[in-house]
Amino acid sequence: MFDNARLQRQIEFILEIDRLKQVLRQTIITDKSRRENSAEHSWHAALMTIVLSEYAENPQIDVFQVVKMLLIHDLVEIDVGDTYCYDINARKDQHERELQAAKRIFNLLPKDQARQLQLLWDEFEARQTLNSRFANALDRLQPLITNYYTHGKAWQEHGVKRHQVVARNCSIEDGAPELWRYALRLIEDAVRRGILSE
Amino acid sequence: MFDNARLQRQIEFILEIDRLKQVLRQTIITDKSRRENSAEHSWHAALMTIVLSEYAENPQIDVFQVVKMLLIHDLVEIDVGDTYCYDINARKDQHERELQAAKRIFNLLPKDQARQLQLLWDEFEARQTLNSRFANALDRLQPLITNYYTHGKAWQEHGVKRHQVVARNCSIEDGAPELWRYALRLIEDAVRRGILSE
Repeated sequence: MFDNARLQRQIEFILEIDRLKQVLRQTIITDKSRRENSAEHSWHAALMTIVLSEYAENPQIDVFQVVKMLLIHDLVEIDVGDTYCYDINARKDQHERELQAAKRIFNLLPKDQARQLQLLWDEFEARQTLNSRFANALDRLQPLITNYYTHGKAWQEHGVKRHQVVARNCSIEDGAPELWRYALRLIEDAVRRGILSE
Repeated sequence: MFDNARLQRQIEFILEIDRLKQVLRQTIITDKSRRENSAEHSWHAALMTIVLSEYAENPQIDVFQVVKMLLIHDLVEIDVGDTYCYDINARKDQHERELQAAKRIFNLLPKDQARQLQLLWDEFEARQTLNSRFANALDRLQPLITNYYTHGKAWQEHGVKRHQVVARNCSIEDGAPELWRYALRLIEDAVRRGILSE
């Protein structure tokens, strides 16, 4: 129907990523009515980046690059689903499965764009650059805040303990030391209030 | 609990905007299982911006500004709900109600950030700048594509006709002429296939 083959590929990608709205995470939304999906999580983390960029470990970060990373970081879940961060078994071959998914999904786009998004996703996953460390910090902080303010419902459902939450989230410090100090206080307070077990 | 009052305000904003995940739109997601919410729509439109920025009427647009606009453009719906774009009565005092909502929600943030987001939202609403015209084009194109690929289910439910779809979406041309030509073909094809009435 359309004579612009490039645009048609872009539209196919845009349609395909709509499926991220069907991928459910373990986190629940703040009214506790249901689980959050990965498209909403991506939106929330991207907007948090804009509000919290002043806390990046290094002020040289490129905020737009971080926002882009967070907008695309979970697209692989369209193929592999969300792997719960405290599920050690499922996480074993997670990266391999996600690599395949990234390849398939990004390659729906024209080659130049597929390559750009693949590089961005690789950078996010490798957590070596300033931008990716900050992006990863916000990817973790978003559910931590939501869990705390929904009285730890998701933690309790899965029997998650304090040491697991600390181990999972301590890399926030690499990207945003002050946000990690804040997160630690949330965790301590959650334990004190009995919504996260010791 | 927290000694950083600035961060505490930022966190309050971050928690408040979680409620956008509860605001349902008339558009349905592509598996047709349910209506889309405004947080998902914002994510989708923001990511579309990155993929489709080459079609902006003017290549001078600042893509990050457009992405930011789309990430925040619907936050007012937390207070006023989503106004269906073909509901003329509801749209009458929509802008006044949304202005109040913007003021309340952005002012949860520290003053400097509240002002930045308010200016950005005002710019989006006024549709005078290059950036805001492109942002508005994508805000309209996202549901148009989704409606077309879900066989016009939302159009049929509301008895929406071709001339309404054209009138609502023709401003896509101001921001992205080639995307408007594409949208027109979708509309024509929808009428031909009987999923949008003449």
